[in-house]
Amino acid sequence: MHRPLLAATAASVLAAPLAASELRDTALDYFAPLPSTLMAPKDNKITPEKIDLGKALFFDPRMSASGVFSCNSCHNLATGGDDNMPVSIGHGWQTGPRNSPTVLNSVFNVAQFWDGRAEDLKAQAKGPVQAGVEMANTPENVVATLNSMPQYVEWFKGAFPDEADPVTFDNFAKAIEAYEVTLTTPAPFDAYLNGNEDALTADQKAGLELFIDNGCVACHSGVNVGGHDYYPFGLIEKPGADVLPEGDVGRFAVTETADDEYVFRASPLRNVELTAPYFHSGVVWGLKEAVQIMSISQLGDKMPDAEVDKIVAFLGSLTGEMPEVVYPVLPPETDTTPRPSGEIIPN
Amino acid sequence: MHRPLLAATAASVLAAPLAASELRDTALDYFAPLPSTLMAPKDNKITPEKIDLGKALFFDPRMSASGVFSCNSCHNLATGGDDNMPVSIGHGWQTGPRNSPTVLNSVFNVAQFWDGRAEDLKAQAKGPVQAGVEMANTPENVVATLNSMPQYVEWFKGAFPDEADPVTFDNFAKAIEAYEVTLTTPAPFDAYLNGNEDALTADQKAGLELFIDNGCVACHSGVNVGGHDYYPFGLIEKPGADVLPEGDVGRFAVTETADDEYVFRASPLRNVELTAPYFHSGVVWGLKEAVQIMSISQLGDKMPDAEVDKIVAFLGSLTGEMPEVVYPVLPPETDTTPRPSGEIIPN
Repeated sequence: MHRPLLAATAASVLAAPLAASELRDTALDYFAPLPSTLMAPKDNKITPEKIDLGKALFFDPRMSASGVFSCNSCHNLATGGDDNMPVSIGHGWQTGPRNSPTVLNSVFNVAQFWDGRAEDLKAQAKGPVQAGVEMANTPENVVATLNSMPQYVEWFKGAFPDEADPVTFDNFAKAIEAYEVTLTTPAPFDAYLNGNEDALTADQKAGLELFIDNGCVACHSGVNVGGHDYYPFGLIEKPGADVLPEGDVGRFAVTETADDEYVFRASPLRNVELTAPYFHSGVVWGLKEAVQIMSISQLGDKMPDAEVDKIVAFLGSLTGEMPEVVYPVLPPETDTTPRPSGEIIPN
Repeated sequence: MHRPLLAATAASVLAAPLAASELRDTALDYFAPLPSTLMAPKDNKITPEKIDLGKALFFDPRMSASGVFSCNSCHNLATGGDDNMPVSIGHGWQTGPRNSPTVLNSVFNVAQFWDGRAEDLKAQAKGPVQAGVEMANTPENVVATLNSMPQYVEWFKGAFPDEADPVTFDNFAKAIEAYEVTLTTPAPFDAYLNGNEDALTADQKAGLELFIDNGCVACHSGVNVGGHDYYPFGLIEKPGADVLPEGDVGRFAVTETADDEYVFRASPLRNVELTAPYFHSGVVWGLKEAVQIMSISQLGDKMPDAEVDKIVAFLGSLTGEMPEVVYPVLPPETDTTPRPSGEIIPN
């Protein structure tokens, strides 16, 4: 579903400046604040035991073949839930094809990965661990590693109490999803949507109005200010091949539908201040520059600098409070734990 | 200073089995419990602000050229303060020459690195960050990175309030030392030394007695049960070249004294259960096997299996309570932050 026309509609309806409460009312037509309780993912009951197990797995570098990388390596909770690199460096110093997206608030995305090829977080969690250029592991080796450590076996029993043989790759992914569901970051923008007019500065409100008025909201809306649907990158004007490399056709690789060439999931913009560099190609370091590229490629117009500044100010109101994370103490290896290997095995 | 004769002396004095309190008295001749307050390192006043800054630096992967590695990568506080690999994988997927030692309780070591080439933790902290096969960074780039993030500059001002220009590579190292000083792990063995006879099991006490009686204590004594002095590896019988590679002459490379060939700092044994694989070469995965190798190479005798088991039980009493670590939220990069580079620059 593409809704390019919404941009034009929004722009015409909202041409007149809005009063304070009017702006908030309009914002509530497009956005929603973070919910007050944990989201309930499909087929995965969330329990404290499952969350704790998922946290251990998320931080455990032994889930990679080499013992170097954990989920947290590329989705680092200390740095906005991503790794601040154009594309991640993984197994054998190979680089991934696309910029690592933040794990924060990722439960609110319609699907996972830039092309939405994983329907949810538990499906996503199985990807990097097996990707040859990322963690380069196998489901069998992950399960063998977990079964070799009695503490992990106990934790799986606690997290999946009704299962006879709970240490499985599916449950590994479910536990990680359970943990990731907790990684949400309430921001000033939520307080604003919830009625606190003072939560945004005057510049941030002006930026919000421009964000709606100029039509950015056509693709970046919902709880995650994006992340809810797919759109062509270069809707009006294709950006340069550095920003939109020709070889990466986006969602086309998933759907094999011609309409989906160079279509990507709209970036969720919560904490965007913290997640440079930008775009699936990860080549743009400045948020102002990123907004300007979006303005030209998606809206067909170079936005005045002063407007870009206000939109960047608004985006700053999406920077939320990070969840407090007590670093886990992981179970020690045993004699039967598969040994780490940095060996690069060609596909 | 080598004291191989102590082994023989200890063995003869302690030939008769010891009564419970007698064993503890004897143990107190060789060991000391963890102190009740933080150690005060030389020329580095410890303050809460400095500890907090040091924690941020310890966990910050942007201290490496690539943005992949932090201090915590190879000294992972989730897995016993080390990385569970024979030798660490670093910049460009290169491997280091020696097994990564645990950072836990490292303040109690006489000096840092396997060959003691850094006199203290602040000297050590400057090593890996510059090593081409580890973090591959430069002091200039570290300082530029820190200065590019206003929050870090503030934190340095708070940690070094009397300095006009506190963001320096020296202070970077001092802050990391301040944090590492806090990483101590009180263990059942400390409770035992402090008078709680029930803190060790019968097997652990038997193992402690054997540890003293057989002369292990000649090299592994003090607060850290090792780490306090240098000894030849292969004192009686040289282990195989896999365990003691010929090309690594140990402390000889530091002192250039013939006596120091194949001399290493005795491993501190706190948390040894958690820090496989063993020895500077990191090739031995089992603690029993490691004890057996020590027995033959340092004491000249294959120890009966039942005795090895008891010594391993005793070593288990050195596994301490991990410090609770709240994972830091790090400052975001700015336009002036040097960009990460995974490029491999030949020496």
